[in-house]
Amino acid sequence: MYGIIQLQEIISEEINKLNFDKTPENLYKPVKYTMQGNGKRIRPALVLAACNLFSESVKPAIPVALAFEVFHNFTLLHDDIMDNSPIRRNKETVHKKWDVNTAILSGDAMMILAYEFLKDLPAELLKTIFPVFNETALQVCEGQQYDMDFEKQKIVSETEYIEMIRLKTSVLIAAALKSGALCGGADEKQADLLYQFGLNLGIAFQIQDDLLDTYADVNVFGKQTGNDIITEKKTFLLIKALELLNFNKREELLTLISNTEIENNEKIKRVKDFYEKIEIQKHTEQQIKFYYEKAIHALREIPLPDDKKSGLFDFAELILKRKK
Amino acid sequence: MYGIIQLQEIISEEINKLNFDKTPENLYKPVKYTMQGNGKRIRPALVLAACNLFSESVKPAIPVALAFEVFHNFTLLHDDIMDNSPIRRNKETVHKKWDVNTAILSGDAMMILAYEFLKDLPAELLKTIFPVFNETALQVCEGQQYDMDFEKQKIVSETEYIEMIRLKTSVLIAAALKSGALCGGADEKQADLLYQFGLNLGIAFQIQDDLLDTYADVNVFGKQTGNDIITEKKTFLLIKALELLNFNKREELLTLISNTEIENNEKIKRVKDFYEKIEIQKHTEQQIKFYYEKAIHALREIPLPDDKKSGLFDFAELILKRKK
Repeated sequence: MYGIIQLQEIISEEINKLNFDKTPENLYKPVKYTMQGNGKRIRPALVLAACNLFSESVKPAIPVALAFEVFHNFTLLHDDIMDNSPIRRNKETVHKKWDVNTAILSGDAMMILAYEFLKDLPAELLKTIFPVFNETALQVCEGQQYDMDFEKQKIVSETEYIEMIRLKTSVLIAAALKSGALCGGADEKQADLLYQFGLNLGIAFQIQDDLLDTYADVNVFGKQTGNDIITEKKTFLLIKALELLNFNKREELLTLISNTEIENNEKIKRVKDFYEKIEIQKHTEQQIKFYYEKAIHALREIPLPDDKKSGLFDFAELILKRKK
Repeated sequence: MYGIIQLQEIISEEINKLNFDKTPENLYKPVKYTMQGNGKRIRPALVLAACNLFSESVKPAIPVALAFEVFHNFTLLHDDIMDNSPIRRNKETVHKKWDVNTAILSGDAMMILAYEFLKDLPAELLKTIFPVFNETALQVCEGQQYDMDFEKQKIVSETEYIEMIRLKTSVLIAAALKSGALCGGADEKQADLLYQFGLNLGIAFQIQDDLLDTYADVNVFGKQTGNDIITEKKTFLLIKALELLNFNKREELLTLISNTEIENNEKIKRVKDFYEKIEIQKHTEQQIKFYYEKAIHALREIPLPDDKKSGLFDFAELILKRKK
């Protein structure tokens, strides 16, 4: 059995072996630049970990792991254009370093390159994994669209928000696990349990992200907290707060959030005052726990000895307990 | 046997049956808008025509035909952003009617939707067609990149130009024919001959496009000629002229082309004077004929009775003789 960190290393080596020194250079250089960013390689590591549950060798899953990682990086590349983000993983984003046209076309090429890894799968495996990969890819686009739509919406419901993060983030983690399991020889039911594990863990992870942005220990977090408040991001915390507050208080919070004249730290403090009165931190932690437990439940259901699953249990706990 | 026009009608009906009334609306409305444009549906008709050579029913090829048409429309959508084109097929382009972000994301979704049509193919057919489709998709991106690169290059060679149009346009036509043939039960060799037919016909078509833009009969062409000259497009005509002229004349033509102070009709007239002195029209027609004959040769090589192939012969002739 491989640990997650070992699998991340295997994938990093595989990525380093990929040849992006192809022509036209203006198409492939940004692809190489993006793939050489210091990503955490979580999705491909999960593909391999899921495969490893059912097969000693993780080799059959490597092309699928690469497909997921390249696809994930494609979404970051195009999302960065849409969000006009200047920096990604401490490097200039492609549309800033080159230009928007280059970022669009290199992104398109990356999406196709992701599919390219699937082409050498045995016919029957391709037939099972291709629809999973493809449906997921479409859902990720849907999630990104909801995310952009929400920016223009005054109120977003908790249900809408969970659906958005499910599509934008969780389905890719879920599908990575499912596809890896299928590569390892899992049956449909086992693969679906891994999908459920990934889906719920992904949602827990994303809500955790929102919580840390406001409530992390700054010394461990490594950056300022409160950024989501300043950028008026519709996080789980804000959405939940708006849901729990009465009409007057809700309007007051909305006015505060959109007020750009208050000094940043003062604004963060005042928003947190709202949050604390209705115990947002507790509500959010409850939600994280709810999805975390659903994830663990699915993992337990897989009829394999617990020591085989220990890598994934550890990974889930790491997600739950992370401080940054 | 179906004629090309009949096949275009079959495909139009199939496209009308597709359901794009899905959520999020902001993602799928531009997809629907793009697919409902009055495209000529040439690529999907060729998929079906190639299938029809080997199989009475064209039904098995319909999903593949739709995949090619949706992919082609995706490329138009993203190309229109990159070229900043306001109009496509007499309608506002997506990035003008909505915005650039919408056009990027809907385009991404369209590419995935194209793949989606392949997922129901029988495992063995998926295994053969998927790599063809995928390699072609990547080549189309490479072609678009070369096209954008050429805009910034002072001189483009004829070889570079042919390679660019091969990638940007011809491989998709070629792969459409090859994939259709495979759906109909053709063997690898027959499918490859159809690929060669499509590849060479596509190149002939594209050079013909350049010729018509300058030399078409305006009454038949339906719009002004000389547009490529005004937009300083590096067409086959210009590239060939720059290749045939001596150093001094070449510099003179380059200066004329980039001079934005001359009145349009005067500029067109002067450029055509250059062209006529070195018989550009004749050279271009020779090239079209060269690729047309290579296409016909490949089609002849397919060991099927000529009457089966008459639809494709007619189609090739139509391309050669078209006046608009």
